[in-house]
Amino acid sequence: MKIVVDAMGGDYAPKAIVEGVIDAINEFSVNIVLVGDQEAIEKELANYKYPKDKIEIVHTDEAIGMNEPATTSIRKKKNSSISVGIKLLKEPGYNAFVSAGNTGAVVAASTIFLGMMDGVERPAIGLVIPTLKKFAFLIDVGANTEPKSQHLVQSAQMARVYAREVLGVQDPKVGLVNIGSEETKGTGFEKETYKMMEEKVTNFVGNVEANEVFSGKSDCIVCNGFVGNIIIKTSEGLMESAATLLRREIKKSPIALLGALLMKSRLNHIKKHADYSEYGGAPLLGVNGVVMISHGRSSPKAIKNAIKATISEVEHNIIESMVKEISG
Amino acid sequence: MKIVVDAMGGDYAPKAIVEGVIDAINEFSVNIVLVGDQEAIEKELANYKYPKDKIEIVHTDEAIGMNEPATTSIRKKKNSSISVGIKLLKEPGYNAFVSAGNTGAVVAASTIFLGMMDGVERPAIGLVIPTLKKFAFLIDVGANTEPKSQHLVQSAQMARVYAREVLGVQDPKVGLVNIGSEETKGTGFEKETYKMMEEKVTNFVGNVEANEVFSGKSDCIVCNGFVGNIIIKTSEGLMESAATLLRREIKKSPIALLGALLMKSRLNHIKKHADYSEYGGAPLLGVNGVVMISHGRSSPKAIKNAIKATISEVEHNIIESMVKEISG
Repeated sequence: MKIVVDAMGGDYAPKAIVEGVIDAINEFSVNIVLVGDQEAIEKELANYKYPKDKIEIVHTDEAIGMNEPATTSIRKKKNSSISVGIKLLKEPGYNAFVSAGNTGAVVAASTIFLGMMDGVERPAIGLVIPTLKKFAFLIDVGANTEPKSQHLVQSAQMARVYAREVLGVQDPKVGLVNIGSEETKGTGFEKETYKMMEEKVTNFVGNVEANEVFSGKSDCIVCNGFVGNIIIKTSEGLMESAATLLRREIKKSPIALLGALLMKSRLNHIKKHADYSEYGGAPLLGVNGVVMISHGRSSPKAIKNAIKATISEVEHNIIESMVKEISG
Repeated sequence: MKIVVDAMGGDYAPKAIVEGVIDAINEFSVNIVLVGDQEAIEKELANYKYPKDKIEIVHTDEAIGMNEPATTSIRKKKNSSISVGIKLLKEPGYNAFVSAGNTGAVVAASTIFLGMMDGVERPAIGLVIPTLKKFAFLIDVGANTEPKSQHLVQSAQMARVYAREVLGVQDPKVGLVNIGSEETKGTGFEKETYKMMEEKVTNFVGNVEANEVFSGKSDCIVCNGFVGNIIIKTSEGLMESAATLLRREIKKSPIALLGALLMKSRLNHIKKHADYSEYGGAPLLGVNGVVMISHGRSSPKAIKNAIKATISEVEHNIIESMVKEISG
């Protein structure tokens, strides 16, 4: 299996990317194609011992910045690591693409160069999130901020396949994010989507309020990309604020500091469970190829785990399975 | 000052309501009118010693359930504690209304019986939330799920008055919840609202991403009622899940349990800061009267603090100040 990795994407590229790739080839049975500035990549690779035949480099002299406008940058920078990397998937022997770069640009390039899979009209980004039970799959966290109801139905169907094949959940339950549990709740959009999901989505369990997202009540949690972004960012911000507050309070009391030290191993256990980088990146679903988006702040571990999740997607032929689920 | 309190609203009514009211008249200079079933109220009041002239009862024989449809229930139950209580505000000498009952019904009854204040087209519910600095005022958390841009502008203007008069923030900063910091982010709705806010809202600081809600970056945080509900419920759910996870981990290790005990006083300090019931209820703004909505699960302390915040609103003539801010 050969996975194409964007060496120039993310806040710590190419250093963190190359380190993650080295860890991946040491742990998993996979070949990597690093796309980006050859000199910069080789300089990083020189720090490691590794089987040379497992990594190849495809040189590009352009990279898209984290804050460049997505579609314009794809149109203007024909030779960017994102565009070149994604186009490789059209050639035989390249199985998937991983990038921690500009999310909008990855979505745009994937849509333009790979096209949509049969039966899906719009791309959606999923995210594996920790819950009180185990994991849930939240979709969409930002690709499509103004979807139509049928786009959410298609996302739900793709999410079921992802949860089943990659997360190993049998007959995954699907919930729709809404502001109340009754089917009459929400705006016209949620009401219409609810009806359509009842008809077309297997094991649809109804509305899920935002306070139930982390409860494990539902395996696949479907919402528009705006709401998904709000859920993820609210969670991130709240956890960061709570940690800051905790550190601030502990500093005020030596006894509390001792208490924190005694709790450390259990707290680390929770931290590990809550850490997104443990589960790899966020799969871009709906396009005609396996594309994984990693957080811009991805550490080498996050990159390694994104590659691990991508391997699992390829092994389970998820695109084929998704097309099958959607065509009924 | 005379504040009307819905004795029948909330999961623990009338018991928790009456207890909160007793605490309020003991601590603050206020008279209370309890609206609801006279017999049930008197039975609760019999448990306390208090100055009899500070509480009067207005009997009603109907109450609206927590899950009844809002507008229908207001139309059908003419004699409900919510309708009767809100109508009292039209008579001289009654300054405000507090309810922990059905939120939708309180919003509907307030809009119908009190009408909107000059210059405001739609009601909005605000909420004081804890931040790393001190507090922020989040508006709207659920009254208007499909607002127009000018409704958000009006909410922003009301929020500034609330933050200034009730929370004591000088020249409050206003942010718009969005999925990115640049003004080109979000859907057409956010872009239009951004422009309108730049023109019309004093001290508008631009977009606020959901991970910055608790950072203290902005004093007033404006969004539509759907998104506000998602932010609040995500936070509630995440905190509950984190607490469950923490208890689960602590049980696994006696050392961690000891650590938790040593940290207890500092953890309680954080808990107090994060506890909504410390700041009272959620003011319903935009209607022509002072209306405070408390959480359905309100404890006596939450009711007492809701009354405290309501007193502050009345003392600061916030309706007058809001009309003035909006008319420019």
